[in-house]
Amino acid sequence: MSVHPFDLAVALQPQADGSFLGQTSPAYANMVGPFGGVTAAQALNAVLLHPQRLGDPISLTVNFAAALADGAFSVTARPARTNRSTQHWVIEMQQQGEVVLTGTAFFGLRRDTWGADEHPMPNVPAAVDVARASGSARVEWVKRYEMRFVEGAIPVQWDGADQGQSRTRLWLRDDPPRPLDFVSLTALSDVFFPRVWRRRPVLVPVGTVAMTVYYHADLALLQRTGSTYLLGQTEAQAFRNGYFDQTAQLWNEAGELLVTTHQLVYYKE
Amino acid sequence: MSVHPFDLAVALQPQADGSFLGQTSPAYANMVGPFGGVTAAQALNAVLLHPQRLGDPISLTVNFAAALADGAFSVTARPARTNRSTQHWVIEMQQQGEVVLTGTAFFGLRRDTWGADEHPMPNVPAAVDVARASGSARVEWVKRYEMRFVEGAIPVQWDGADQGQSRTRLWLRDDPPRPLDFVSLTALSDVFFPRVWRRRPVLVPVGTVAMTVYYHADLALLQRTGSTYLLGQTEAQAFRNGYFDQTAQLWNEAGELLVTTHQLVYYKE
Repeated sequence: MSVHPFDLAVALQPQADGSFLGQTSPAYANMVGPFGGVTAAQALNAVLLHPQRLGDPISLTVNFAAALADGAFSVTARPARTNRSTQHWVIEMQQQGEVVLTGTAFFGLRRDTWGADEHPMPNVPAAVDVARASGSARVEWVKRYEMRFVEGAIPVQWDGADQGQSRTRLWLRDDPPRPLDFVSLTALSDVFFPRVWRRRPVLVPVGTVAMTVYYHADLALLQRTGSTYLLGQTEAQAFRNGYFDQTAQLWNEAGELLVTTHQLVYYKE
Repeated sequence: MSVHPFDLAVALQPQADGSFLGQTSPAYANMVGPFGGVTAAQALNAVLLHPQRLGDPISLTVNFAAALADGAFSVTARPARTNRSTQHWVIEMQQQGEVVLTGTAFFGLRRDTWGADEHPMPNVPAAVDVARASGSARVEWVKRYEMRFVEGAIPVQWDGADQGQSRTRLWLRDDPPRPLDFVSLTALSDVFFPRVWRRRPVLVPVGTVAMTVYYHADLALLQRTGSTYLLGQTEAQAFRNGYFDQTAQLWNEAGELLVTTHQLVYYKE
């Protein structure tokens, strides 16, 4: 049985000083450096693999301080505060002694409580009834995901016409399919192409600066979801002076909200 | 001329080791410890006052690792990476040698670009035509803000009936009015009462765990807004196993989007 490329990509080797050593993965290469979703997943993995880790991820924020160079990196996760059932982490990734990522994470033990999903999954055709995106992918990492666009696919005409809105909805999963876990869910939270290209199709340079992921799913819900499709929805709220935000949600096919996420993206023109 | 209570609350004294010393403010006291919005504002202020600071705030994430005790705290801001026109910061707040807050911030110089506000300000009556919330405030910090609820005010009947949604819209500003800056805008991003009380009026214990603020406004826009009202809108996306998220937007009276913000909140029942 072969190892899934995602597992190879996020693998970390513990070092004697408590840090971890990782490698960028050619299978998840972006235009410059690696796909940020995998970098975020590696940052989370440094906490997940840490011997002092308590509970499961509930919140993660990563800041991309510089484009990662292809090759090795070190990542440290420090438990800044451990409470009875919660834990706060500070994360840092370095290459050649320079910081390339900063982050924080909040982990905890979950309890049964009253609950409700307030943001409902939109009414869309089932994944199997939506055509898979084809055509030549501009970058390698895109080939690691099956994407079925319900609305707002990557523009075909880069004519710069303001679309008035930036929403995209798509079914997505790892390719080949892989049972969902917190690490892959983190990467899946970043698969949306930049909203500035959707709102106004011009191939301006872009780069995610910061991303926050709120995990509403616990381990049982992830296992129940397995390797089935997730519905992703994303849209921007504002584009202003070189930066825009994009919010996103990920539901499983049963309509359960697994993740809400937000990111801030640099754009140039 | 007297000093505004907010300026007293967020004041920091630089220490010889590069850290800052602050004090919680009785004027912004919460049920237990201080109002988290002011704590977040103090964290941001440690970067704003730092001699190596480059540019203006674009993104801030704070994690509340423990309830602050009333009294003194120290806060350190470390420039983890400085690029040509951007800068990444790591922030930590301590009391009695224990971490009470972790955070990261992204600062930068802004440039003129194409832009658009995608999330429009909702159609609501003007601030002066909406009654100011009255009644006895349960906590002190609420008295430091003028709040005019358009929709979804704090429940009167705590009957536990599921409202089906959690949206609140209100006009708000500092009381007494104070010209807007990045520090006060940070605190204003956290004035919304917890969505779990709105969705299902039961006074369950709550506490913000993490908050991210994306600043779409630059200094010129803040100055243009001055001490006029902001319209705030907030709602939850999911309540699950002890945690819920809430998203929010703040516009000025001209309908310009100043901030988008998200937080994750603990709730018990």
